[in-house]
Amino acid sequence: MAPVPLQAALGPALDFLDLAGIAVFALSGALLAAEKKQTLVTFFFFAVITGVGGGTVRDLLIGAPVFWVHENVTLLICFAAAIAAWLAPAGLWQGKALLWFDAAGLAAYSAFGAAKGLAFGLAPLPAFGMGVITGCVGGIIRDVLAGEPSILLRSELYVTAAAVSAALLVGLTLAGLPGGAAGLIAALLGFALRGGAIWRGWALPTYGR
Amino acid sequence: MAPVPLQAALGPALDFLDLAGIAVFALSGALLAAEKKQTLVTFFFFAVITGVGGGTVRDLLIGAPVFWVHENVTLLICFAAAIAAWLAPAGLWQGKALLWFDAAGLAAYSAFGAAKGLAFGLAPLPAFGMGVITGCVGGIIRDVLAGEPSILLRSELYVTAAAVSAALLVGLTLAGLPGGAAGLIAALLGFALRGGAIWRGWALPTYGR
Amino acid sequence: MAPVPLQAALGPALDFLDLAGIAVFALSGALLAAEKKQTLVTFFFFAVITGVGGGTVRDLLIGAPVFWVHENVTLLICFAAAIAAWLAPAGLWQGKALLWFDAAGLAAYSAFGAAKGLAFGLAPLPAFGMGVITGCVGGIIRDVLAGEPSILLRSELYVTAAAVSAALLVGLTLAGLPGGAAGLIAALLGFALRGGAIWRGWALPTYGR
Repeated sequence: MAPVPLQAALGPALDFLDLAGIAVFALSGALLAAEKKQTLVTFFFFAVITGVGGGTVRDLLIGAPVFWVHENVTLLICFAAAIAAWLAPAGLWQGKALLWFDAAGLAAYSAFGAAKGLAFGLAPLPAFGMGVITGCVGGIIRDVLAGEPSILLRSELYVTAAAVSAALLVGLTLAGLPGGAAGLIAALLGFALRGGAIWRGWALPTYGR
Repeated sequence: MAPVPLQAALGPALDFLDLAGIAVFALSGALLAAEKKQTLVTFFFFAVITGVGGGTVRDLLIGAPVFWVHENVTLLICFAAAIAAWLAPAGLWQGKALLWFDAAGLAAYSAFGAAKGLAFGLAPLPAFGMGVITGCVGGIIRDVLAGEPSILLRSELYVTAAAVSAALLVGLTLAGLPGGAAGLIAALLGFALRGGAIWRGWALPTYGR
Repeated sequence: MAPVPLQAALGPALDFLDLAGIAVFALSGALLAAEKKQTLVTFFFFAVITGVGGGTVRDLLIGAPVFWVHENVTLLICFAAAIAAWLAPAGLWQGKALLWFDAAGLAAYSAFGAAKGLAFGLAPLPAFGMGVITGCVGGIIRDVLAGEPSILLRSELYVTAAAVSAALLVGLTLAGLPGGAAGLIAALLGFALRGGAIWRGWALPTYGR
């Protein structure tokens, strides 16, 4: 189990991905607030919940200190995302640009969450679960609070992409791959899968009985 | 306070009940995914949330390590329940069989959760609360995520049965009964009450002003 | 950072505010159960969730022992609030009396939550966040469980009042004010703001593009 090498190898890239992931997730929360014609305070609230929700639940479950409570930068990023969503011209966020950023955040976060699970000594399946939770739970809480149908209930590939990233990270790490390589492969394949869903509408079959 | 004797006395029976409880709760989550025509990935997600949700919230509240993160078996059971729900002929789960399994899980889990609360040194009322939470919260999260009216909002006896099991476990333990006896009596009476709701439609009066 | 002086200075006043805050929040939960024609068991459940929800999430996030699990009194207050809501003549809670109590609870709790965050060594922004969470999250969970549109989605000042109390507590404490003074000023101004919303309908502008 080599999550420490993962961090060492990716180093600044991982730190950047981490903050970029928080930013795009926070932005997606704030944009939902915009869609629902909310106040700036609600923009803030949704940005924070979406940006840090998944990682927060992961940290609680694995017994880690919650990652954003001992520094200001994480909340600052969420607040900046909320203000950007509030000020930007309405057209800017339309189209698919945000979906692609979100896909990058989803894939990187799912790999990162699974690696953190292994680093805290979790068994492989729960570590995989932490990856999925890190990638998806912020968006799920956002949808529940907004009264929107959750991403959970869409057949479009989303949770599946998170699951692929998380499973690859765990599998490749257990197979002895260095953490950096495992992280890159896991994130890239999850991203490709989610990309197929955005670009081509890839979806899973639904239960049809 | 004798939750350790409870475990010692019930021993393998308790272990079996524990795993069986996870399985029926996970199955009820997966069946809701089937009802809503979801994908297999959503079956997994709902099975896990419903199977481990209540115990997870309990463990976080009492400061215990979350029970399923250091082993694979709990998630394996949830995944197996999801696959069973996906593959089984649609008629198999209809009728009331599942409700009776769920009633057994509810009663056993509520007693077990209250006993775990006492074992962690909680005061009697919060320990009672942990029993109710262990029995009910997984189903509540499942319903919220699915956009269904929660079991909380039905007058049919459900939370009440959990409360009776939890209260009896705490009361009988404090009265000095050995843990095994307290656990059995608590679970059986809770099960009987929930059984009355399934079989006879027992319900509480609603607020009528 | 002087949250201990806050507690020392306010002393019994703070203890009283704490229990009164739990009581009014619990009452607001039970009254929603009444509005929805629920059973007494659901009254209990909603009273507890609303009364302790915000502080519970705060304690989990900052790594504090959850405040209500080692004593009976908190749950007793919630249960008493539920019974009071069940037994009282329907007219008693109508009008704005409850809103004013709730405003007092909101302001005091937001200041208290931020002070507890500082006392646990949090950075200023997360400590501010803990204040908002302590004041608002119980009500948010209550609304989600009841299937009501959340206070988050109303433009009326509510979360904003909590944010003002929390921000003032953190800012004044960092500026060196003694804890008692910071707590009083923070709670009074948050209360005034929320009062303006109740009395005059003060609201924030909503996103209008």
